[in-house]
Amino acid sequence: VKRKNPKTIAIIGLGLIGGSIGLACRKHFSGSRVVGISRSRRKIQYAKRKQIIHDGTTRLEKGLTSADLIIICTPVGTIQKVACKVEQVLTRPTVVTDVGSTKHELVRQIELEGFKKVMFVGAHPLAGSHLAGVEHAGESLFRNAFVFLTPTEKTLAVAQNMVRNFWNQLGAKVKMMSPKKHDQIASEISHTPHAIAACLVASTSSASLRFSSTGFADTTRVAQGDPDLWIPIFLSNRKNLISSLSRFSVKLLRFTQILERGSRSELARSLKCASQRRKQLRSHRDRGLFR
Amino acid sequence: VKRKNPKTIAIIGLGLIGGSIGLACRKHFSGSRVVGISRSRRKIQYAKRKQIIHDGTTRLEKGLTSADLIIICTPVGTIQKVACKVEQVLTRPTVVTDVGSTKHELVRQIELEGFKKVMFVGAHPLAGSHLAGVEHAGESLFRNAFVFLTPTEKTLAVAQNMVRNFWNQLGAKVKMMSPKKHDQIASEISHTPHAIAACLVASTSSASLRFSSTGFADTTRVAQGDPDLWIPIFLSNRKNLISSLSRFSVKLLRFTQILERGSRSELARSLKCASQRRKQLRSHRDRGLFR
Repeated sequence: VKRKNPKTIAIIGLGLIGGSIGLACRKHFSGSRVVGISRSRRKIQYAKRKQIIHDGTTRLEKGLTSADLIIICTPVGTIQKVACKVEQVLTRPTVVTDVGSTKHELVRQIELEGFKKVMFVGAHPLAGSHLAGVEHAGESLFRNAFVFLTPTEKTLAVAQNMVRNFWNQLGAKVKMMSPKKHDQIASEISHTPHAIAACLVASTSSASLRFSSTGFADTTRVAQGDPDLWIPIFLSNRKNLISSLSRFSVKLLRFTQILERGSRSELARSLKCASQRRKQLRSHRDRGLFR
Repeated sequence: VKRKNPKTIAIIGLGLIGGSIGLACRKHFSGSRVVGISRSRRKIQYAKRKQIIHDGTTRLEKGLTSADLIIICTPVGTIQKVACKVEQVLTRPTVVTDVGSTKHELVRQIELEGFKKVMFVGAHPLAGSHLAGVEHAGESLFRNAFVFLTPTEKTLAVAQNMVRNFWNQLGAKVKMMSPKKHDQIASEISHTPHAIAACLVASTSSASLRFSSTGFADTTRVAQGDPDLWIPIFLSNRKNLISSLSRFSVKLLRFTQILERGSRSELARSLKCASQRRKQLRSHRDRGLFR
């Protein structure tokens, strides 16, 4: 009989997401042991002290000894390499998932590795913050957040079910889709806003910037994100990002043309449409995060 | 001897800004009487009940009877017309200011009127919310916020000093600049982010929009703003807005070209620069509003 919940959960990478998963596991899987694996002894000590993990180690082999579920929470550019190391040290087939923000390239590359022990399921929780680091971890980060699972025809059903069950129990809303579809959506709702916010910050003069208020601050908040995390995301999803930015540029060009014509009626139509569309977002969320 | 504080303050227009000014006056000018003037009896009743104003009226003449300071808090497109009506009903020279988001066209038009009683000083508090209406008024909206005064060579020093003193006592940081300079800055830090947020909302597919999270929500929050308030702002500042949007488009084009080249080093430079620049904003504000 297959146990429903993993007895030991191993989290590789103790940042904002890894730490928040640890905290959520401690709350929702009270019977499970949570092991943290990080190259940083400081992070391990912090995570143990804050009861994010039961135990921690810098050695992958030691950390994965009795793991039933392994969650790779390292930056996108390193996930494949980490998965290969996991394959090397595992002694039995084990479910492995990740939290990477792009999926198409990664899942393809991992499947090309032909792992014998790593039973991989691609995943991406749509939750985060511009504040990186385990210090900002929170147990409720994933509550009511969407988590995308990106199984393919090579994904084992048992692995997929375990990962889906895991996120459901953490209070997330799990959606299944292809890695390709995932990257299109992530480009539109996450990578494109980030690129636009960065360009807006860059194109605003310093003389004006010093007077900026809450509106400017909110519009550009995501541009603060850690570049080291975002560079591999942008590069691995650059085709979708380029086409999302191109669609945006067309809208912006049309908007500018309306201003050049000074057309009140067209401007009204454009602003009303955007305002209504943005207001409708609220109904899709039951968290109190929309202001 | 000239009294320092106005004995009676008349607020024309009871929306978010007018209501917040009322609340702030009640707190910081305890010796002054606050009169609200609105076409809406409902708003007047609400404002009296919530102690935003001492008294209210729908009749301009009655409301301005003993006013020492008149603050026009109606939408940008109506300020000139309201100022003309104020000139008609005033029986003595009185300081009149406004809170309009654009200044160049407005101040020029008001000066062309050649008022004999209205002693006008253009002003714009950089505070607000996408939530319009007196119901969202707050007494601390202007605390530590910038307030731009836009005097010209025609502005009377006594009027300018009274308005500056007024905003200082409300806890705002008053800056003086020409109406032209004001509109350039406002375009960059307020009108451009709004236009970009609206275009981002418009260019994102509905299929993706339903999965949007806090990042997308914050980036596009200002797009919810009331179109009826924003249309006249955009139209009266369209030259500056068009050039700010053009500078933004150049940055966006360069960013897209970096993605097309797949250049990690250029992408790193671009994202690092934006992230640092955005993080520096915090130091310019001592409110707890930056997240």
